[in-house]
Amino acid sequence: MRIKLTIAYDGSNYFGFQHQEGHDTIELRLTEAISKINKIETKIIASGRTDRYVHAKGQVVHFDTNLKITEKSWIKAINSYLPDDIRVLEACFVNDDFHARFSAKLKEYRYYIQTSYDLFNRNYSDFFTNIDFDLVEKAASKLIGTHDFRGFCSKEVHDLKDTVRTIHEIKITEVKPNLYEFSFIGTGFLKYQIKRMMGIIINIGLKKLDISIIDQLFITKDPTLCGKTLSGRGLFLYRVIY
Amino acid sequence: MRIKLTIAYDGSNYFGFQHQEGHDTIELRLTEAISKINKIETKIIASGRTDRYVHAKGQVVHFDTNLKITEKSWIKAINSYLPDDIRVLEACFVNDDFHARFSAKLKEYRYYIQTSYDLFNRNYSDFFTNIDFDLVEKAASKLIGTHDFRGFCSKEVHDLKDTVRTIHEIKITEVKPNLYEFSFIGTGFLKYQIKRMMGIIINIGLKKLDISIIDQLFITKDPTLCGKTLSGRGLFLYRVIY
Repeated sequence: MRIKLTIAYDGSNYFGFQHQEGHDTIELRLTEAISKINKIETKIIASGRTDRYVHAKGQVVHFDTNLKITEKSWIKAINSYLPDDIRVLEACFVNDDFHARFSAKLKEYRYYIQTSYDLFNRNYSDFFTNIDFDLVEKAASKLIGTHDFRGFCSKEVHDLKDTVRTIHEIKITEVKPNLYEFSFIGTGFLKYQIKRMMGIIINIGLKKLDISIIDQLFITKDPTLCGKTLSGRGLFLYRVIY
Repeated sequence: MRIKLTIAYDGSNYFGFQHQEGHDTIELRLTEAISKINKIETKIIASGRTDRYVHAKGQVVHFDTNLKITEKSWIKAINSYLPDDIRVLEACFVNDDFHARFSAKLKEYRYYIQTSYDLFNRNYSDFFTNIDFDLVEKAASKLIGTHDFRGFCSKEVHDLKDTVRTIHEIKITEVKPNLYEFSFIGTGFLKYQIKRMMGIIINIGLKKLDISIIDQLFITKDPTLCGKTLSGRGLFLYRVIY
């Protein structure tokens, strides 16, 4: 039986999603909890990794089990073994051809920028003052569409053949005074792509980069042209659409 | 010259406000920062202590200095020496007869209860389900007024002569779905008083305590009758009125 879980976590105290020897990760905690209930070492597959400090409100994972308990019981049982900064929100039985990573059609990430420092939101946003949001809007709109994002991602990804991705929507909303939400909906995102894109559009808004940098990055595909990558703390994997 | 500071802090990583040998406290961090700028060990006086895990959005302290810099420069200088979870919001020059503790007329504390678990709010609220808010409202209203709150505070306070305090207002607001704010405005509060009062009214709302417990506590003044004290994590010193 295959089970799909929707999960939320606060990434502040973890070394990212993916298991790394000697580090505390979301994957380690989930695998331990599920393996205890399954009474056998159980492999979990996620929709994708999230980097250090990055949060999730709707990460999706799947795993297989022979245990016959209800969906509600799965939620309760796994949560009882998880720390209070990781939570299973939903569990459902799915067909064997469901795959958390390969079946994903779209992903939505959200990034938060505060323009007046609120210390209670310091782990969930990045902080800048004097941003020109008209320039930010213009810069963001240039990223929408199907592009080769090789210039916007981690060097590690540069061996990948396919770095073409489609961004369907970038929506910027002032969700409360001095707090801006950037929603990115696309077919998938490369390693560091959102933190790098945010770095570029915020630095354009701060007039530290010219908007022409975006075309240059599409043409040269050279990530060393990027300004500062923003912190992972402002980033949330918001939902995965199947 | 006397300076009044308004300060916000996230109490999650501190052992309360007051200096305690071998522990990291808000007072220690503030004293260190201010002493560095003043270039002499400087004593700061707060409106009152806050316990372990308790936050502040408007704690007030004062100190004396011979340094001649502007109010804005004080804010900037102190913040440059503070960790990112403590922030000076305001600085102003005050008369020598201003005293952060003795001049305080009223204090407002706010306590947050979540009724659906939001892990991103876990350090800033306490979590309960199945609360009867009509009972909570009734219980809260019984606490308003001038009473001897000896039964509602820490044992350490029991040598105090005067445990009579006046609560002017208790306002309960659903600030967003499943998040309730309890605002307490009064002439001052005894050690643990708000966490204990919250424990009592929430346990009345959960039908674990009968509402008659409040009159019993006023009469017997026996704190062992109280139910569980709520966590400091949900509590904010919101403002001090002079």
